[in-house]
Amino acid sequence: MTSTAAEQAAMRRALALAATPGVPLGPNPRVGCVLLGADGTTVAEGYHRGAGTAHAEADALARAGDRAAGTTAVVTLEPCNHTGRTGPCAQALVSAGVRRVVFAQADPNPAAAGGADTLRAAGIEVESGLLADQARELNRVWTFAVDHGRPFVTWKFATTLDGRSAAADGTSRWVSSKASRLDTHRLRALCDVMLVGTNTVAVDDPLLTVRDGQDRPLAVQPLRAVMGERDLDPGRRIFNGDAESVHLRTRDPREALAELYARDHQHVFLEGGPTLAAAFLQAGLVDEIVVYVAPMLLGAGRSAVADLGITTITDAFRPRVTDITVLEDDPEHNVRLTLAPERI
Amino acid sequence: MTSTAAEQAAMRRALALAATPGVPLGPNPRVGCVLLGADGTTVAEGYHRGAGTAHAEADALARAGDRAAGTTAVVTLEPCNHTGRTGPCAQALVSAGVRRVVFAQADPNPAAAGGADTLRAAGIEVESGLLADQARELNRVWTFAVDHGRPFVTWKFATTLDGRSAAADGTSRWVSSKASRLDTHRLRALCDVMLVGTNTVAVDDPLLTVRDGQDRPLAVQPLRAVMGERDLDPGRRIFNGDAESVHLRTRDPREALAELYARDHQHVFLEGGPTLAAAFLQAGLVDEIVVYVAPMLLGAGRSAVADLGITTITDAFRPRVTDITVLEDDPEHNVRLTLAPERI
Repeated sequence: MTSTAAEQAAMRRALALAATPGVPLGPNPRVGCVLLGADGTTVAEGYHRGAGTAHAEADALARAGDRAAGTTAVVTLEPCNHTGRTGPCAQALVSAGVRRVVFAQADPNPAAAGGADTLRAAGIEVESGLLADQARELNRVWTFAVDHGRPFVTWKFATTLDGRSAAADGTSRWVSSKASRLDTHRLRALCDVMLVGTNTVAVDDPLLTVRDGQDRPLAVQPLRAVMGERDLDPGRRIFNGDAESVHLRTRDPREALAELYARDHQHVFLEGGPTLAAAFLQAGLVDEIVVYVAPMLLGAGRSAVADLGITTITDAFRPRVTDITVLEDDPEHNVRLTLAPERI
Repeated sequence: MTSTAAEQAAMRRALALAATPGVPLGPNPRVGCVLLGADGTTVAEGYHRGAGTAHAEADALARAGDRAAGTTAVVTLEPCNHTGRTGPCAQALVSAGVRRVVFAQADPNPAAAGGADTLRAAGIEVESGLLADQARELNRVWTFAVDHGRPFVTWKFATTLDGRSAAADGTSRWVSSKASRLDTHRLRALCDVMLVGTNTVAVDDPLLTVRDGQDRPLAVQPLRAVMGERDLDPGRRIFNGDAESVHLRTRDPREALAELYARDHQHVFLEGGPTLAAAFLQAGLVDEIVVYVAPMLLGAGRSAVADLGITTITDAFRPRVTDITVLEDDPEHNVRLTLAPERI
């Protein structure tokens, strides 16, 4: 791979554009694009603003207009080759007269890949792999979902120091602190599906929307999904108008994820009780665990984690720790652990 | 309280002398003493090196010899008034011709108190309270024990993220990491009693000595105490020659602590199983909790904390968090929480 200093700087800028905060992406990856003139100066910039809007390349080309001819397109993801809600970017770059394309991450999506070939066939110079690791990290969950053909699953639970999620009489308000609950809403907002089991809906009747610090719902809400074969009262709060919802009539984690992926969902936030979580964990379908530990003791009550079929200490489930954070400004000193479920 | 700048500096020095590391104190408080000449320069220094050795004032007076006459004694604890294994310090200061005494913490021990009165009666100027908070903190555990007439109790337990101390088949080697186990030995060395129940001795047969990183026993060992009415096999490891041991024939935490305090013990390290810990906790006889959390899941197995009689969430035991530390250089990322059992 050969790239100029100007192209490297442009790729860093494209990554920053892609990471513009506040963009409701839906199922699409974050992508940024910079068009460079022959002298290495920037002609135009663009980035993708979410499903149904222009791709990053199209955004930059539109801003450049006639000035796009002869430029080098520096883009964080291989230009797509398929016609989705917008036309194929590879063809658009050819039509605009772009001379050279430098991209970071190759498109892992078989339906969209092949852009590099189309560009080369049209006589355009193509370089790939520049800052590819950063580009993959930027779309960590999207890349995982496309690579695995199923959504990435984050399992979140809250527990006391002695492993309880509720007291003996079933009361659980609150095990986790206000800071933990706010942090949970921050993480919910990064996902596109909230998933629980029918039992949680029947017993706890959660709203499952994402709310801000003043308990106001955010403008964009994840899908609220409940899985299980049991019929549910349509009056449960999950079925209200605050966000979309769906009842997946299966108890099989793999089937549920397949159905959600078919609906273009890529990041499931699993909050639905220890039994459902155990089923996902035992099926190897948990990709990230977020645990809020409240420094309190109950001594009895509902276990935060259900039976995992583990009988001896050498079989203990030992996920890799990626982060431990004492929540800021939390008078209750809750601790958040983030774990990756690979055996160490 | 009036003190000169030289006296304030001397008190800071006396506190540092008292905190000299490596001193095996036994039941005695850490004390430091500085003798100041009329011009504010140091004539001699002293500190207490443990039970049976000279008190800090006697140490400094011995070093000063004839030069003690006319000095100001700056000492971190009120000079004692009683004859223990050494003579009363108040009288020794009078005899040496000391002109003035400035001390930090008043002696909370009724058997030893009254030193200030003795000094004043002999015509010596006495000032008290200078840096008293630091002096109390220096002997936090000793002060607590004397104030409460019983040993300070540190309860230590290790748990998985889901509140288990052993797997379903009883295996528990290891829930905590090597770093946690080393850290536990560091804390054991700060106590003067290791306390477990008869069941722990019968089932686990622990050695209960304090060992270093190479698993070698330290030169000074806490008393190994087992409490409970059940008879024990004298061949259990707790009764071997590696350290002193005692069987307290009671199941009552208060009685056990009274007996240990009568034997001049001030800091109990409670490691003896969840049932014993629950009895201490419910009796309000736990003063500090140290928890090692291992980021692993078992899903089933022995609970790290026994039933505490709590049935509803509002009655949850919510100790104050004094410290949360991710253990250094620990590939297993154990987290240590230190808690003070006051309701917040």
